[in-house]
Amino acid sequence: MKIVIAGLGIIGGSYAKAIKKYTDHTVIGINRSKKPLEMALECGAIDREGTLDDLKDADMLIIGTYPKYAVEFVRTNGHLINKNCIVTDTSGIKTAICMDMVRLSEQFGFTFVGTHPMAGKETNGFVSSDADLFQNASCILVPCKAQKKDIKKVEDFVRSIGFTQTPVVTPKVHDRMIAFTSQVPHVLACAYVLSPLCKNHQGFSAGSYRDVSRVAKINAEMWTELFLENKEPLVSELDTLLDNLYRMRNSIANNDSQSIYEQLMEGRKIKEELGE
Amino acid sequence: MKIVIAGLGIIGGSYAKAIKKYTDHTVIGINRSKKPLEMALECGAIDREGTLDDLKDADMLIIGTYPKYAVEFVRTNGHLINKNCIVTDTSGIKTAICMDMVRLSEQFGFTFVGTHPMAGKETNGFVSSDADLFQNASCILVPCKAQKKDIKKVEDFVRSIGFTQTPVVTPKVHDRMIAFTSQVPHVLACAYVLSPLCKNHQGFSAGSYRDVSRVAKINAEMWTELFLENKEPLVSELDTLLDNLYRMRNSIANNDSQSIYEQLMEGRKIKEELGE
Repeated sequence: MKIVIAGLGIIGGSYAKAIKKYTDHTVIGINRSKKPLEMALECGAIDREGTLDDLKDADMLIIGTYPKYAVEFVRTNGHLINKNCIVTDTSGIKTAICMDMVRLSEQFGFTFVGTHPMAGKETNGFVSSDADLFQNASCILVPCKAQKKDIKKVEDFVRSIGFTQTPVVTPKVHDRMIAFTSQVPHVLACAYVLSPLCKNHQGFSAGSYRDVSRVAKINAEMWTELFLENKEPLVSELDTLLDNLYRMRNSIANNDSQSIYEQLMEGRKIKEELGE
Repeated sequence: MKIVIAGLGIIGGSYAKAIKKYTDHTVIGINRSKKPLEMALECGAIDREGTLDDLKDADMLIIGTYPKYAVEFVRTNGHLINKNCIVTDTSGIKTAICMDMVRLSEQFGFTFVGTHPMAGKETNGFVSSDADLFQNASCILVPCKAQKKDIKKVEDFVRSIGFTQTPVVTPKVHDRMIAFTSQVPHVLACAYVLSPLCKNHQGFSAGSYRDVSRVAKINAEMWTELFLENKEPLVSELDTLLDNLYRMRNSIANNDSQSIYEQLMEGRKIKEELGE
């Protein structure tokens, strides 16, 4: 395949490196700034720098930008995209993206299959990209109106570069699950480190501090967008968490050892049933 | 030294293994049930099973039991403890323990230096113990009324088995810091997995789910005790977290992107300033 990757940050860059490491596809890179393109060329993550002309015979277009630029890119350049091309984004939210993308795919004739690679780091940009970022990770597929053969094509492709789970869901289910599995932990990490005690934690902390606070080293611009574009499921999950936290807080404040014990056992049981 | 360890769970067992691996001290084990003693003997973690008589010429007594049994053990057997012995507990809470322990040390003549090894796992018991559990970890020293030379002795000892940080604090400071660094993450992990979505997370999650939920596989009995014996600092820290979570939740619900961005940047800055 001829694969065009638009946006060579940590995710787009990791796609490029993984494709070159694990497959024989040709990778063409497009990026607003020059630096990531130079680095990608130098380390062999892309075969060459591309132009919009490359969209005319691309078999696949992977958009690695922030969500809002993903739609903007396709809206602006959709008329240049090969009608046999499969276009996929890599955004962490789907309802907000997919409606526009499906409309644009119908307008311009290409196929859209949304994907969300469940992988990342606390650092950003092409310098943080890694050919093995996706090893054993999950890539959520949100095919919307795509045909079975095209979904299969995307599934085979993501598995060829390391992903081992490929659940297929609607945008709505995706966004609800992601609110819980990813967005709440990011809100939580930031809220947690805002305690005035945080600055003095060193020497008094171990794994549990490290784990809860890890993702507080956040890309604030991107996550502000992700939170707002997934507002309803996220606020709903935050309310669930706040309720559960309040229940525990009140049991502790009221010395209700039986109730604390039961809530802890309930949590433990959920982890055990999941085999974690 | 002749070191008696009372309670061979994950912590007491790891002390025993680390002492035998890294020092020449003699280790005597005491435990209510036989099984951990048999295992400890078999793998060389203790030199022999002890009796209460061993307290008469012990140089150090390490109590590895749950907090409430630590005080009970010393109250019952304090009259048997060598007056030159340094007694240390390993409890995760200190105000509740130390007042009793200091009183008992004055009554019976031994020296008490509270310690809190900041290390653990999601599994318990002697089978989970590990000679290297304390490598590069912090051991918080809560010496109360102990003399400098005895504090130094404990510090040198814990450093000899792997600890690399040994902050010295009052019980009150210890308990406030631990509420933030350890207890809040444990409350949080349980509250988090109680979301009805948790049971279906597999395929939709990655590192941030794993990290926040990890300690939900909790020893419910022990943590119920720890939470209640540190009630005031813990409830205060939970209230701080709840306030910060609400602020973020409301900014999201109100589409206030500037406020979300600022809160995220504030969290990021704290992590950066800590060099994390």
